Amino acid sequence: MLNNEEQFISYISKSFKSIRELPDDWIGIGDDAAKIVSESKNIVFCADAMVEDVHFKRNYGFESIGWKSIVSNQSDLAGMGAKPLAFTVTLGLNKSLNESNLKSLYIGMDNACNEFGGFLIGGDVVKSEKIFISISAIGIPFQSDNLLLRSNAKKDDIVAVTGSVGDAAAGHFIIENKLSGFKNQQNKFLYPKPKFLESKKAIELGITCGMDLSDGLSKDLLRICKSSNVEIEIELEKISSDENLKKLYKDNFYSKIASSGEDYEIIIIGEKNKIKALSNKMKINIIGKVTKDKKTNLVFKKNNKKTNIELKGFDHFE
Amino acid sequence: MLNNEEQFISYISKSFKSIRELPDDWIGIGDDAAKIVSESKNIVFCADAMVEDVHFKRNYGFESIGWKSIVSNQSDLAGMGAKPLAFTVTLGLNKSLNESNLKSLYIGMDNACNEFGGFLIGGDVVKSEKIFISISAIGIPFQSDNLLLRSNAKKDDIVAVTGSVGDAAAGHFIIENKLSGFKNQQNKFLYPKPKFLESKKAIELGITCGMDLSDGLSKDLLRICKSSNVEIEIELEKISSDENLKKLYKDNFYSKIASSGEDYEIIIIGEKNKIKALSNKMKINIIGKVTKDKKTNLVFKKNNKKTNIELKGFDHFE
Repeated sequence: MLNNEEQFISYISKSFKSIRELPDDWIGIGDDAAKIVSESKNIVFCADAMVEDVHFKRNYGFESIGWKSIVSNQSDLAGMGAKPLAFTVTLGLNKSLNESNLKSLYIGMDNACNEFGGFLIGGDVVKSEKIFISISAIGIPFQSDNLLLRSNAKKDDIVAVTGSVGDAAAGHFIIENKLSGFKNQQNKFLYPKPKFLESKKAIELGITCGMDLSDGLSKDLLRICKSSNVEIEIELEKISSDENLKKLYKDNFYSKIASSGEDYEIIIIGEKNKIKALSNKMKINIIGKVTKDKKTNLVFKKNNKKTNIELKGFDHFE
Repeated sequence: MLNNEEQFISYISKSFKSIRELPDDWIGIGDDAAKIVSESKNIVFCADAMVEDVHFKRNYGFESIGWKSIVSNQSDLAGMGAKPLAFTVTLGLNKSLNESNLKSLYIGMDNACNEFGGFLIGGDVVKSEKIFISISAIGIPFQSDNLLLRSNAKKDDIVAVTGSVGDAAAGHFIIENKLSGFKNQQNKFLYPKPKFLESKKAIELGITCGMDLSDGLSKDLLRICKSSNVEIEIELEKISSDENLKKLYKDNFYSKIASSGEDYEIIIIGEKNKIKALSNKMKINIIGKVTKDKKTNLVFKKNNKKTNIELKGFDHFE
C-alpha cells in the first residue's frame, strides 16, 4: 500500500465513507483539487497540525491520532459558530508505518467525520522522518452573519465554559507516566469531542463571543482579553472539574486546571440573559465575568481574592 | 520573533500585504478560523506540502521556498480552471531558523499572492525537526460549472501543453550539482509561475480536460489516461523545450524531458477546433492526441515510431 502515492490514494478512496460518499455535485480525490458546493457564500477556513513526538506519540494508537487530527479542526469550527463541510489531509509519512497503522489513522479520521460532519476531499502525501498530519478545514456558519469571535467580549458579559476542564491533560499525564485508572480522562485525551451543539445554540441565542478551549483557560482567555481589550475575572472554584483530579494534582490543583490544554470545550461569553438562556438548554458552567473594558487583564480569584497561581499556557511551539 | 507563537503571528499579521489587506467583509488571523466571502458557492479546495531535504534545501533561499509553496497550490487551482481566493499556511519550524529566514519565507509567499492572487488568512505553527510548509488553498472556478478534469479526455481530442518542458528539472540539476549557467532554468525552478491566463482562456473556450504539469509529462499524462480510460500518443519531437538542454542531457534527452517535474505548466486536452482557437490566443504546444478510448495507455513516439524510452515519473513519496 505504501509503495507509491497512487496505490495509497486508490486504497483510501475506496475504503472510507467520508471519502467515498460525497454529495452528488462534489468532486473528491482524483484531480488537482476537489470541488465542493457550499450552502453559503460565507466560508470559515482554518488549519491545525500535529507532529509526532511533539503533539502525539505512536503509543497513543493511530486511531486516536487520526480522530484528534480531525477533531482539533472541528473544534476550531465549533469555536467560530460554524459546522464542518470538508477537510484536506496532508500526511508526512515514512516507511516505518505499516498498512495497519495507516488504516487505523484513517479509521480515526473517518469516524470523526461521520460522527461530527465533514468529508475528506483531498490533500497531499509527502515523505517525512517524523510523522505529521496537517489538516485544513472548510466550514460554514450556523447562521450566515453571526460568528463567535474573540474580539466581541463586552463589559459585564458573563464567561462560561462547556463541560469540565482539565480531563484531557490529566489523561495525558496518566498515559505518559504509564499509570492506571482515570479512564474517563484517558478517553477524553485520546478521543475528545467538538462542541457543535453548544456552539449552535449559542449562535441561535445571538451570542457573538467565544473560542475553543484548546491551549488552557489561562492562555485562551488571555487571547480574548487582548482581542477585546477587556479585563476578565475568573472564580477558580466555579470551574467544573472532576473531583478525582485533586488526588492527581495536590498542591497545584487550580494552577493545573487553569492551564490544562486539549479539552476542546468552548468558552462562550455573552450578556447575562443570553448565557442564562443557554444554561437552561445546555450543560455549561459560568466561571466568571468581564469586569472592565479598555484594559487587557486576566484575573483569577479564589475565595474571592486575587490569586497568583502559576499559570503556564500550553504552547506546542515553545 | 520565534520566542512564541503569539509574537510570530503578531509580526506576520502586520508585515505582509496578503495577510493585512483583506477584503472588508473577511476576517483573517486572530480567531479560531478565518471567514472569507466567496463570489460563488462552488468552491475548489486543495493542499500541497513541501518538506526540507525532500522537496527543498535551505540553500535554495527561503524566498524561493515560500514562493514555490504558494505557487504549487496556485498551479493546482490553475490546473482545475479556478482562481485563488485564500490560503492557510501550516509551518513546521524549529529554532535553527532565524528571523531573516522567516521574513524571507513570508516575502516569497506574499509576493506569489500579490502577483497571482489569494490571501494568507491563517494556519498553524508547530515545532518540527525538519522544516515543512503545508498549504491549503481555496479557489473559485473561472466559470461556475466548468472545470478542467482529468476524466474528460475523449477520443480524437488534441493534447497541448503550455510553455516549454524540462526547464525546472534542469535548473534543479544545475543547482544541486553547483554548476553555473542555465540561468533561465534555475529561475524557473526557483520561481515557477502558475498558468492562470491559459487556464482561464481554456475554460472560456469550453475546454473541460486538463491538469497541472508538476510530476512530469509521463506521470501526469498517465493519470489522465487512467482517469479518462483513453490511449494518448505523444510525439516527443513536438514537446517544446530549450535547445540548450540537449547539452545537459546527452543520451537520454527525451527520457529526461518526458519525466521532468515541477514545471507548473498545464496540460490542456480538448477538441481540435477548441485547441486551435486556444493556440491562436496563447502560446501553447500541441504535442499529441487521444487515439483510443476504452483502453488506458500512454505511448511516446519518435520519428513516428513507438519508443521505449525509460520513463520515470517524479514521486516525492517513493
